[in-house]
Amino acid sequence: MTTGVRRRMGVEERRQQLIGVALDLFSRRSPDDVSIDEIASAAGISRPLVYHYFPGKLSLYEAALKRASDDLAERFVEPREGPLGARLLRVMRRFFDFVDEHGPGFSALMRGGPSVGSTTTNALVDGVRQAAYLQILSHLGVERPSARLELVVRSWISLAEATALIWLDGRRIPRAELEVQLVHDFAALAAVSAASDAEMAAVLRSALSQEPTESPFADLVTRLVALAG
Amino acid sequence: MTTGVRRRMGVEERRQQLIGVALDLFSRRSPDDVSIDEIASAAGISRPLVYHYFPGKLSLYEAALKRASDDLAERFVEPREGPLGARLLRVMRRFFDFVDEHGPGFSALMRGGPSVGSTTTNALVDGVRQAAYLQILSHLGVERPSARLELVVRSWISLAEATALIWLDGRRIPRAELEVQLVHDFAALAAVSAASDAEMAAVLRSALSQEPTESPFADLVTRLVALAG
Repeated sequence: MTTGVRRRMGVEERRQQLIGVALDLFSRRSPDDVSIDEIASAAGISRPLVYHYFPGKLSLYEAALKRASDDLAERFVEPREGPLGARLLRVMRRFFDFVDEHGPGFSALMRGGPSVGSTTTNALVDGVRQAAYLQILSHLGVERPSARLELVVRSWISLAEATALIWLDGRRIPRAELEVQLVHDFAALAAVSAASDAEMAAVLRSALSQEPTESPFADLVTRLVALAG
Repeated sequence: MTTGVRRRMGVEERRQQLIGVALDLFSRRSPDDVSIDEIASAAGISRPLVYHYFPGKLSLYEAALKRASDDLAERFVEPREGPLGARLLRVMRRFFDFVDEHGPGFSALMRGGPSVGSTTTNALVDGVRQAAYLQILSHLGVERPSARLELVVRSWISLAEATALIWLDGRRIPRAELEVQLVHDFAALAAVSAASDAEMAAVLRSALSQEPTESPFADLVTRLVALAG
């Protein structure tokens, strides 16, 4: 791009640019507080031209959320190599990167609110949750999860969302600590379920058998035994 | 009340009756699927008379949700007597009673949706969460929680909501099992946090010191140690 020269953009290129500008604004403040005028101004175009590409703020918000959802779902993808705990920790780091980048928008969306609770936005959020769920099952090597395994994985995903939201509200705990904590939480919730269910115990044993002796999981068990003693 | 005789109700009495009728309908089906006509019919009055007491469906929904929220918050109240695990288990039973009674309405509200995401409904849901949070702190005997304790308690409340929602979707796991599991989950999440934080370890030790040797917590620790060994 040459400085000072405004070249004409094609329709799709202009749409993608507007989505990027909007996502940036919706990430930094609650979507209710972002106006079409601001988006137009940040994109360097007129308000009527924004409406030429998007019928209204909701459709632009939904397009921005779609881009953010795809981005987040991609961050869940992790090679099936090495210990499970280390894989999950890398995903947690990328999850907190995302939460960090989109803080106010993420909070507004997940806490619900006037403009953010459409059928489309709910479907996008559920799609990301489903992507996370399927990734975890795939890493556990389970194709047909039991109801108890499904519960552990899905409820842990809710716990991860809640942990991120609480972190955003004041950032009083270092995020690196929470990334490790969520990996430990996953093991702990799986262990609670495994403690009274043979099938879950088999899944957990299989997962832990791949862990090296100095893994985060092994470290946690040692600490918990010490705490209980 | 005499059978067959319709006596005139006062304004407040009629409002309360309408709220009760509406809450019943909003509990059994998603609020979006309940019409004012149905509520009028169930209450045995005309549609215009419903509008005389409530300006629209949203205000009636909010009034019904207010009643349900107060009801749920009351179920969290538990005498400060006996082991903590047993107290939490009794609260979990009453929580699942509530979820059972209001299933479809609870799901619709917590999953968000077109008509259920108003500022008022969000504030009511947050109020119930806050009531749960304060009850737990009070039972732990903590007045000024650290950021880590606050995170453990609040994120566990999210986990309990998620667990109830997943249970409602097919009821594939006996609720009694999930009531115990959530008590264990609380201990497990607290233990994970305590494993790397001295202040949390002190809170957990103090809580566990009140547990009898054959408590659900002690049982869990025994099972976890067996699983890890």
